[in-house]
Amino acid sequence: MAPHKSNFLKLRRLGIDTNLENIIFMRADSQVSKSEGFTANTRVLVHHVNHELVATLNLVTSDLLLEGEAALSEAAFHLLKAQEGSLISVSHLKPIASFSEVRAKMFGQSLSEKAFARIISDITHGYYSKIEMAAFITACAGDHMSLDEIIYLTKAMISTGTRLKWKSPVIADKHSVGGLPGNRTTPIVVSIAAAAGLIIPKISSRSITSPAGTSDTIETMTPVTLSIDKIREVVKKEGGCMAWGGAVQLSPADDIIISVEKALDVDSSGQMIASVLSKKAAAGSTHVVIDIPVGETAKVRTTEEALKLEYYFKAVGHAIGLSIEVLRTDGSQPVGKGIGPALEAQDVLAVLRNHPDAPTDLKNRSLKLAALLLESVKKVKKGEGEAYARELLENGTALAKFYRICEAQGGFREPTVARFRHEVVALQDGVVTRVDNRKLSKLAKLAGAPKSPAAGIHFAAPLGTIVQKGQTLFTIHSESKGELNYSLDFLNSNNNILQITSA
Amino acid sequence: MAPHKSNFLKLRRLGIDTNLENIIFMRADSQVSKSEGFTANTRVLVHHVNHELVATLNLVTSDLLLEGEAALSEAAFHLLKAQEGSLISVSHLKPIASFSEVRAKMFGQSLSEKAFARIISDITHGYYSKIEMAAFITACAGDHMSLDEIIYLTKAMISTGTRLKWKSPVIADKHSVGGLPGNRTTPIVVSIAAAAGLIIPKISSRSITSPAGTSDTIETMTPVTLSIDKIREVVKKEGGCMAWGGAVQLSPADDIIISVEKALDVDSSGQMIASVLSKKAAAGSTHVVIDIPVGETAKVRTTEEALKLEYYFKAVGHAIGLSIEVLRTDGSQPVGKGIGPALEAQDVLAVLRNHPDAPTDLKNRSLKLAALLLESVKKVKKGEGEAYARELLENGTALAKFYRICEAQGGFREPTVARFRHEVVALQDGVVTRVDNRKLSKLAKLAGAPKSPAAGIHFAAPLGTIVQKGQTLFTIHSESKGELNYSLDFLNSNNNILQITSA
Repeated sequence: MAPHKSNFLKLRRLGIDTNLENIIFMRADSQVSKSEGFTANTRVLVHHVNHELVATLNLVTSDLLLEGEAALSEAAFHLLKAQEGSLISVSHLKPIASFSEVRAKMFGQSLSEKAFARIISDITHGYYSKIEMAAFITACAGDHMSLDEIIYLTKAMISTGTRLKWKSPVIADKHSVGGLPGNRTTPIVVSIAAAAGLIIPKISSRSITSPAGTSDTIETMTPVTLSIDKIREVVKKEGGCMAWGGAVQLSPADDIIISVEKALDVDSSGQMIASVLSKKAAAGSTHVVIDIPVGETAKVRTTEEALKLEYYFKAVGHAIGLSIEVLRTDGSQPVGKGIGPALEAQDVLAVLRNHPDAPTDLKNRSLKLAALLLESVKKVKKGEGEAYARELLENGTALAKFYRICEAQGGFREPTVARFRHEVVALQDGVVTRVDNRKLSKLAKLAGAPKSPAAGIHFAAPLGTIVQKGQTLFTIHSESKGELNYSLDFLNSNNNILQITSA
Repeated sequence: MAPHKSNFLKLRRLGIDTNLENIIFMRADSQVSKSEGFTANTRVLVHHVNHELVATLNLVTSDLLLEGEAALSEAAFHLLKAQEGSLISVSHLKPIASFSEVRAKMFGQSLSEKAFARIISDITHGYYSKIEMAAFITACAGDHMSLDEIIYLTKAMISTGTRLKWKSPVIADKHSVGGLPGNRTTPIVVSIAAAAGLIIPKISSRSITSPAGTSDTIETMTPVTLSIDKIREVVKKEGGCMAWGGAVQLSPADDIIISVEKALDVDSSGQMIASVLSKKAAAGSTHVVIDIPVGETAKVRTTEEALKLEYYFKAVGHAIGLSIEVLRTDGSQPVGKGIGPALEAQDVLAVLRNHPDAPTDLKNRSLKLAALLLESVKKVKKGEGEAYARELLENGTALAKFYRICEAQGGFREPTVARFRHEVVALQDGVVTRVDNRKLSKLAKLAGAPKSPAAGIHFAAPLGTIVQKGQTLFTIHSESKGELNYSLDFLNSNNNILQITSA
């Protein structure tokens, strides 16, 4: 990507935060714009000493910038490691050669291993625009990827990121396919597994499209943004950790893909398998237990779909040297009571603390997953995992391990509580016969989750609950009035979140 | 889309040109940002008196804006009809309901007529982000749209735009599928048809992914940005016009779709058919002749593909009441000598002026299309169209009509000539046996076409030309040094644009 270097421009810091978008601001009448033939909204290469990045050009037609000056969005400023007054140069961005492969995929062709490697490498380098990313994601969505293509994508993602190495030959890991509000088993499973002596350096993600990702929830109790050195230190000390993957760049391309998937609110199976397994492989895991909740309004709706996913997980896992065990679980309603980071953390703590009101569904799912993991790595014999896991949980060993992991990560704190609340009550007597997970999740997101950690839903009416008119079904928690109103708007036009049938 | 109105903000004009992107700049620590829970890069609704639009939020962390102030990108400023000091309010953008239909399409479902109507209506209102647009385009690309879906999309596009009505019961029109550099028959066909007494209010587009669209080329000779009243006036006077469609909003959704297709450099058949026919219907046309160039490196590569397109054009045309005739033409190499707006205009003028050096291929194609149109509207009997068209062209009637149309549109001018040139010569003796249209187009675009009107390629070596080592094959024209270098870079890594075989 050798540029035609143009004249240098001096950086001004305008303090414009565009989140992850790299923007460069240049005068419309500058020599550089004119000699290079730049127009607004074109994508250009920006160079500063040893760093370069791709940015979208905004042209300034006022005196906000003087001749010879340029400015960058905050994200670009940091990525370039620039300072006010730094000299940068700007050049044309060559057409991204690998995007012709994406175009071929859009038109129904299968892509080779090399094609995926080129695409993922270009994405990692930041050469793809958001709309090119959206096209790639859409072209690969649905059933448009073959098993081979998923394997190629997975391998490409592994090869562009950091890869962790561990001394132990057996590294345990778990993953849940998600889509089920409140299914926050990870901190419990990690605590039990580490208490049992397994090495489980758990690296989780933030929410893609849900009201809370595991990292969002754990962050309400302990820091999750850990460096690789810190992760090694915590794992060496406690056998397990609960870190956020975004800080360790296990699969930088995947992080970029996920940010666009989030904006589109889609999560397709091929990408999802590649995303999950590439990160497990990059984290150095050898034995992975995967939870697939199945339910009408969960991400996976039918047993057939779950079996297909199980097949793909195992086949791709095999191709990249991972042992995969799958547990299909009930996905008909939320797990526990909380939906949203802090509210889910309350459930996790209740289970670990053996609180009498602790949600038994969350506890039982966690025990099943821990059991499968203990059996998979041959810590215990087949059939003996659940009793052992229960013992470690109920005698307080798991809780002690949880606190110690939190301490090692930077300290434990109780999750915060939201300022604004709204109770939603039953409009009639009856029995709860159906719960729409998707709408509950949407409501929690509208209330501010996961961005506002204390926001979400406290769910008090699981399937089969006998309710009386006026009884609280669930409570919306919000950190701002605007977001609370926003969720109430949705509630007003969606009165079928729970179905109550007269007894 | 009733908003929760927040406090008013006072507009400052920062003069930031983002092309078509609507951006709002607000202080990160403003009351509004905090109370509404806004974060950088979220999409928000901006209101001003009777106008509203969707914009992407950039947060300002410096004193560029004072408390109580906000700024807009230039595009948003104009759309809102705001002035410096105007008061605006900002609210959350509700999730776009129709995007769930796009998601369904991504996952392989067929969409209903209502679904397309909702999607196109939301796109027209500016509710879709660029990445949502990219997902919609990609989901509909390839062979992913059925005939019914193309009809629904076409109808949805017609119903969201302006629709022209004419007194004459027969309104002629033409279209070329494109992909063939230099295929600029429109001004010639319009001049012949109008000279023959047909009503042909031709409304063309700018380039989507090619080095020049018809409007880009005509604009180098006469103004094309005409209001609807002006179009009526020109057509009333001269029987024909050559206007740019972007100024008359025949299909605003399509214009937005095309801007994203351009950024992705894709143009899929279903969208293309809907785009073309919706605009023809909206323009009030009744009889349309469509040119489909077929060639290995043209947009349509095989006769089979062309026949499929012909079928779709006719079937969709029938569904919306248009009579469609299709002419399949040779697409093996560029038409005429020029590739790029001004260079193509030179060819058009040479044909109209009956210049001895005028490209005969451009002339013959134009005559064939004009003939088909004259026969289609029953101006002449079948088989007599070509002789009549030739007569009108060769006796100067068509040229006189062309000048009169230009005069009516605002005056004729000679196209400009580029400042920088580079001749590409044959490296060996031989015969030209293959021309890569796509690479020639790419080269012309890298040289600056169509943004720089005089940029492009002058092509001097059509198939079968016997060349000697050192003889000029084509000349790159550029308006800036940067763009010329940029095209030379491409040339260096692509020496197979023409194939020369030793005799």
